[in-house]
Amino acid sequence: MVDPKAVLHNLDELRALTSDEQGAQRVAWSPVWLRARAWFEEKLKDLPIEHHYDAAANHWITVKGESEKALVLGSHLDSVPNGGWLDGCLGVLAGLEVLTSLAKEYNGKPPFTVRLVDWADEEGARFGRSLFGSSAFAGSHTIEADRVRTDREGTTLEAALRSCGVDVNRIGDANREQKNIAAYLELHIEQGPILEKLNKPLGEVQGTKGVERWAVTFHGQEAHSGSTPMDARRDALAAAAKLALEIRPIALRHPQSVATMGSVKTFPGIVTAVVGRCETTLDMRDLDAKILSEMLREAREASERFAREERCSVEWSKIWSIEPIPFHPELIKLCDEAIIETAGVSEQLPSGPLHDAAEVARIGIPTVMMFVQSLNGLSHNRAEDTSRAHIEQAVIALNRLAEKTIGWIQQQ
Amino acid sequence: MVDPKAVLHNLDELRALTSDEQGAQRVAWSPVWLRARAWFEEKLKDLPIEHHYDAAANHWITVKGESEKALVLGSHLDSVPNGGWLDGCLGVLAGLEVLTSLAKEYNGKPPFTVRLVDWADEEGARFGRSLFGSSAFAGSHTIEADRVRTDREGTTLEAALRSCGVDVNRIGDANREQKNIAAYLELHIEQGPILEKLNKPLGEVQGTKGVERWAVTFHGQEAHSGSTPMDARRDALAAAAKLALEIRPIALRHPQSVATMGSVKTFPGIVTAVVGRCETTLDMRDLDAKILSEMLREAREASERFAREERCSVEWSKIWSIEPIPFHPELIKLCDEAIIETAGVSEQLPSGPLHDAAEVARIGIPTVMMFVQSLNGLSHNRAEDTSRAHIEQAVIALNRLAEKTIGWIQQQ
Repeated sequence: MVDPKAVLHNLDELRALTSDEQGAQRVAWSPVWLRARAWFEEKLKDLPIEHHYDAAANHWITVKGESEKALVLGSHLDSVPNGGWLDGCLGVLAGLEVLTSLAKEYNGKPPFTVRLVDWADEEGARFGRSLFGSSAFAGSHTIEADRVRTDREGTTLEAALRSCGVDVNRIGDANREQKNIAAYLELHIEQGPILEKLNKPLGEVQGTKGVERWAVTFHGQEAHSGSTPMDARRDALAAAAKLALEIRPIALRHPQSVATMGSVKTFPGIVTAVVGRCETTLDMRDLDAKILSEMLREAREASERFAREERCSVEWSKIWSIEPIPFHPELIKLCDEAIIETAGVSEQLPSGPLHDAAEVARIGIPTVMMFVQSLNGLSHNRAEDTSRAHIEQAVIALNRLAEKTIGWIQQQ
Repeated sequence: MVDPKAVLHNLDELRALTSDEQGAQRVAWSPVWLRARAWFEEKLKDLPIEHHYDAAANHWITVKGESEKALVLGSHLDSVPNGGWLDGCLGVLAGLEVLTSLAKEYNGKPPFTVRLVDWADEEGARFGRSLFGSSAFAGSHTIEADRVRTDREGTTLEAALRSCGVDVNRIGDANREQKNIAAYLELHIEQGPILEKLNKPLGEVQGTKGVERWAVTFHGQEAHSGSTPMDARRDALAAAAKLALEIRPIALRHPQSVATMGSVKTFPGIVTAVVGRCETTLDMRDLDAKILSEMLREAREASERFAREERCSVEWSKIWSIEPIPFHPELIKLCDEAIIETAGVSEQLPSGPLHDAAEVARIGIPTVMMFVQSLNGLSHNRAEDTSRAHIEQAVIALNRLAEKTIGWIQQQ
């Protein structure tokens, strides 16, 4: 049987090893991350497993089964700087416990192969490229775009990878790991407030929301704050402020939409000048591609209206986008059952944040994620937390889901 | 008689000597500024004058009259970086022409002493301290605050002054120049669009507006842009955006008020996070102290209301303030007459920007300023301009005002 307390013990040990008073410091390609991975390798000793790193530095742990068809559990050990103790590593350490338990249960030879993957650089914290390892695995990675990436110190991605023994030209070879995968499961903290608000410990994830990410810049006329009458101004900030407020009703028209203006920069940005140029960023998400494109259109039209009202102009430049990625309906149903058997109640919810599971699902591998409640909806900082009782329930539910998924693979 | 073309000639010569393709570069305490001042000294040769620099590097040029009572004309040769060809130096070069003309008219001995002052570092562009020389003259300078000022390269104000032969400990001695001053006149470009809109070349200035300058910071809760539902957010930017829009009706309730949010900074300021902290600056101005304090109160109350609405908090921290400084009513009347005699029409308007004249007026010296029309309301950049015909009218009108002021001093 699965031992949830062992997972808590490992989480505590990893926190002690890789955090400081500002939080977790397991930034991918850093010495602390390598230390976390070395610590994790120690945990694999004496287990009946094979393990290796693929060409993109994803770490694969395998219990061979009767069939080569494989159930994969996964998540990531890397964190953002000053991150939390659960984001990513909960899924890896719970996955290890489930893997160990399944190996024991079937005397080292389960009916199907069971694998655990620790994806490399999910966060993209240092080079701005999230889902690095899982997108290399999925073949959606673009090496050319990554060649020019540098961190704040000017170190190239290529050099950082090389120092970890990874050749950037070969990362596409990670797609060989796709072979024989029949299903993928990922446990993660919610990182939002929904489950806590509903007083439910766990939920099954419908899929990851599509994201439209744009730079929106308003151009007005820089002018002296003392000598320019109010009615003679072309204030780029005023147009941007209207958009910052208008994206909220646009998002609120749909139950699961979110829209965020996360960054505003003013130029010249001094106390004595009317803002001549205002650079903003917009991030919009929904699980429904049609709703998402409608939101984008509405925000764009609103920005053009506000620009006209303020005698400014506006330009939109795409930063990045991804389509909504739904998870597998039958695995969602199994996840719901596993949660109800464990906690009595469940909830179906979309994931706003992206996860490695999205990269796995988009190449057609049946995938589902399970969320465990976050306290105060906080993540990506040291205040990130989940009650220990809920973590234990999550491990038990993930184990149930793994067993159910093995049964489901058998039926295919 | 005064020769307006000589002023244009000098302005062109100074522009050629001290500008590059980005505009004027006569930043105070820089080699280019010293070059401008050396060029100006050359213009004084062969004139029947005495000249010297005071303890704060203000340059005083004196034509001794029958009486020691003095009429002073003034402005500044320094500019902002990438500045215009007229801001400041128009007043100095027109003043020189008027001084020369008066000396000739009275055969080197006018009834009163006539002086011209080129104030040091009006712009405060390098160390953030505007009206440096004139406030030393007026005794409102605080040496202690200036000791710690540094420029972007880390050079201290004290060291920059020393390299120009100025001892920061002695700048207060500039107040000796106050002696016997009976009136102060300053010609300046408007730097705003009012006169152009009214199609009037010149206007007399009622005084300089009072200024309330504050840092206004909203505190909300940083949150993940993907996982945080719209109704669970405490978005500091939303509260700030409401204030950016609300200061406009507050200012528009009064005919001459202006209110500007010139800088907005978002933290963490990334595309994927709801803004947890939003730092803004507010600059409000009016000629009426009562209206100004009412605007401040209204803006403050609005900010607190918006903070409550967005479940944020707000804090106000004063950056700087100055009271409205009215100019002398009789000199305003003389200025109006001089303008009407020159251009047929005039206009009374306040100055939104501060000027050295404000420092002179606040110690009780009868003071007035004359504005000449700016094209497109632009200043502090190379696009700053005024038609040459209007510059010529300005020189003639300033000369008339100087003559009238001598008459007025005589009547006192």
